[in-house]
Amino acid sequence: MLTYRFANENDCGLILEFIRALAAYEKMSDQVVATESLLREWIFEKQKAEVIFACEDGKEVGFALFFHNFSTFLGRAGIYLEDLFVLPEYRGKGYGKGLLRKLAQITEERGCGRLEWWCLDWNKPSIDLYKSLGAEPMDEWTTYRLTGEKLKEMAK
Amino acid sequence: MLTYRFANENDCGLILEFIRALAAYEKMSDQVVATESLLREWIFEKQKAEVIFACEDGKEVGFALFFHNFSTFLGRAGIYLEDLFVLPEYRGKGYGKGLLRKLAQITEERGCGRLEWWCLDWNKPSIDLYKSLGAEPMDEWTTYRLTGEKLKEMAK
Repeated sequence: MLTYRFANENDCGLILEFIRALAAYEKMSDQVVATESLLREWIFEKQKAEVIFACEDGKEVGFALFFHNFSTFLGRAGIYLEDLFVLPEYRGKGYGKGLLRKLAQITEERGCGRLEWWCLDWNKPSIDLYKSLGAEPMDEWTTYRLTGEKLKEMAK
Repeated sequence: MLTYRFANENDCGLILEFIRALAAYEKMSDQVVATESLLREWIFEKQKAEVIFACEDGKEVGFALFFHNFSTFLGRAGIYLEDLFVLPEYRGKGYGKGLLRKLAQITEERGCGRLEWWCLDWNKPSIDLYKSLGAEPMDEWTTYRLTGEKLKEMAK
């Protein structure tokens, strides 16, 4: 049976396992500097993100991490899905789509106007799924990121 | 003299004026459904975004609206700049770059790892500025948006 539950502060180890599994899948493990203690601080103390698990017979087999973004034109928050990952051995059962549906429900319940996420341009299977759900690619826009030394320099 | 101040709940009318000015500049005025009361609810009661004004001799001439996003790999929040706008008659004095610098300082002060924003692909003057600051375009990624009836359908 598939159920969902919100993560709590006792789940930081489990959240980190999912983050590492996702990074390994994307061959980006070297970029993970998150620790249990950082996750506790930023997710549960400072409340900057929320996590939902998809559970098969009580065992966590997928996770989604999201936060609130904001639309000035709508004058309200939206929901931004930062990461969604289902353990490879539990794929093909609709759990990923189930997590997306759960997020859509939360977006509606909270009166938020939009559910958004981003996707690598070469990930065609996911793009096909998203388009089939009616999601619209924001093709005209590119995100810019300032980080590390360049950020420090700009802050001077 | 250029100063900065955080908006408070008495500024909802002014924030809405800036949002409308930005929308008019982008020829998207028909998309603005924000109201003062929505801004009060979502920015100041539910605290889903923050606003900074750039002020010339005490008069607000530019604004930046931002919120916290989250990086799972870094295990911490970042700052996402949703909108930045300087009134056309006050352009060319470095106020836009000043607001960006202020945001970079807030990002550093709060221990956030990244400052991010997005930009329309045809807006070459802004892109040139961002690249000159060392910001990196996330070219491989596209944002997907689920909204309106499609969102309601997905939530069923």
